[in-house]
Amino acid sequence: MSDRVDIPRKTVYRLSIYQRCLQRLRENGIETVSSDALSRAAGVKSPQLRKDLAYFGNFGTRGLGYNVEMLSGRINQVLGTTRLQPVILIGVGNLGAALLHYGGFNKEGFEITAAFDQDPQRARSVQTKVPIYPMPEMDAFIAAQNVKMAILAVPAVGAQQVVNQLIAAGIQAILNFAPVVLEVPEAVVVNNVDLAVELENLSYFIR
Amino acid sequence: MSDRVDIPRKTVYRLSIYQRCLQRLRENGIETVSSDALSRAAGVKSPQLRKDLAYFGNFGTRGLGYNVEMLSGRINQVLGTTRLQPVILIGVGNLGAALLHYGGFNKEGFEITAAFDQDPQRARSVQTKVPIYPMPEMDAFIAAQNVKMAILAVPAVGAQQVVNQLIAAGIQAILNFAPVVLEVPEAVVVNNVDLAVELENLSYFIR
Repeated sequence: MSDRVDIPRKTVYRLSIYQRCLQRLRENGIETVSSDALSRAAGVKSPQLRKDLAYFGNFGTRGLGYNVEMLSGRINQVLGTTRLQPVILIGVGNLGAALLHYGGFNKEGFEITAAFDQDPQRARSVQTKVPIYPMPEMDAFIAAQNVKMAILAVPAVGAQQVVNQLIAAGIQAILNFAPVVLEVPEAVVVNNVDLAVELENLSYFIR
Repeated sequence: MSDRVDIPRKTVYRLSIYQRCLQRLRENGIETVSSDALSRAAGVKSPQLRKDLAYFGNFGTRGLGYNVEMLSGRINQVLGTTRLQPVILIGVGNLGAALLHYGGFNKEGFEITAAFDQDPQRARSVQTKVPIYPMPEMDAFIAAQNVKMAILAVPAVGAQQVVNQLIAAGIQAILNFAPVVLEVPEAVVVNNVDLAVELENLSYFIR
């Protein structure tokens, strides 16, 4: 991308959250928002918001705040979500089936175009429209559809092996639900979502 | 808790991950592990591991490494997961039903004892053994069962209102799947899992 800027990972997270808030403002017909109001809605301090947005230009008009439409469009551009991103899902067990069934991804511009499983035919309590293919077809699919993102919902055992295969096939970003630390080359990004770790973390803070 | 220490949040996260690695070592009959090997398995640098463990005592024996059983027991104690923690789930839509169906929590010492929904009777494609109650019964259940943790899987609209109700009833820790920034008192901890934000974050890093 020509307008690509190097933005720290935590800023990129916050951009997604600003985007959420801006979308809600748009839905409510609000055209401009002050830095204070937007930062409050996003749960950050106002200087943080200004610093984050400064990475890709100057948006606020002093005394007027941000144009909701413009700022939202620019963040979309930066995040690369202006077009639908194809995503594949690996592992259609309980959690994987749940993720297939979950509608939240599509709304945000991500489409799970296919799922892969060691046993595509096994009985599942969740019905889904996404096709489930056997694992050996994964490489060809990734290449043919130019897929760059994968959601990993396989058991911890064997997860690394699947990841190696994904990366060799061209996957560059992995959302990992397997409770294991994956080893990947530097060019590949992994975000870990470990639900049990989240609960464990919370339980520590209960007094 | 008498042995409670004040440990930074990120350390608490890493403790969960060390625990995962130790459990795997135990399953494989391994009795001791070096600081280097454990840190590598957990994806952190070795000084970080030592610093994290130093919060609650001195465990390593120079040249021998850590006793897997002892260290694992101590981390369990610190994380408060030695006994099963009851958790309630609010919102049994697609994602909520998926979470009920997902077996991963139980394995880690968390039991979803009940779910609450505005429409407990509505048809769901996922069958579950966890009882689903109407929302007005939430307060009494929390009090009677002394529940401290809740998983929030309601839509963004109305999430804050549900959270206010949860906190008033005695909930101290919330795992939030609703795509919204919640306002809570300082004594309450919220961990956010926003799957679309995770994907958006990944998409930025695809070159």
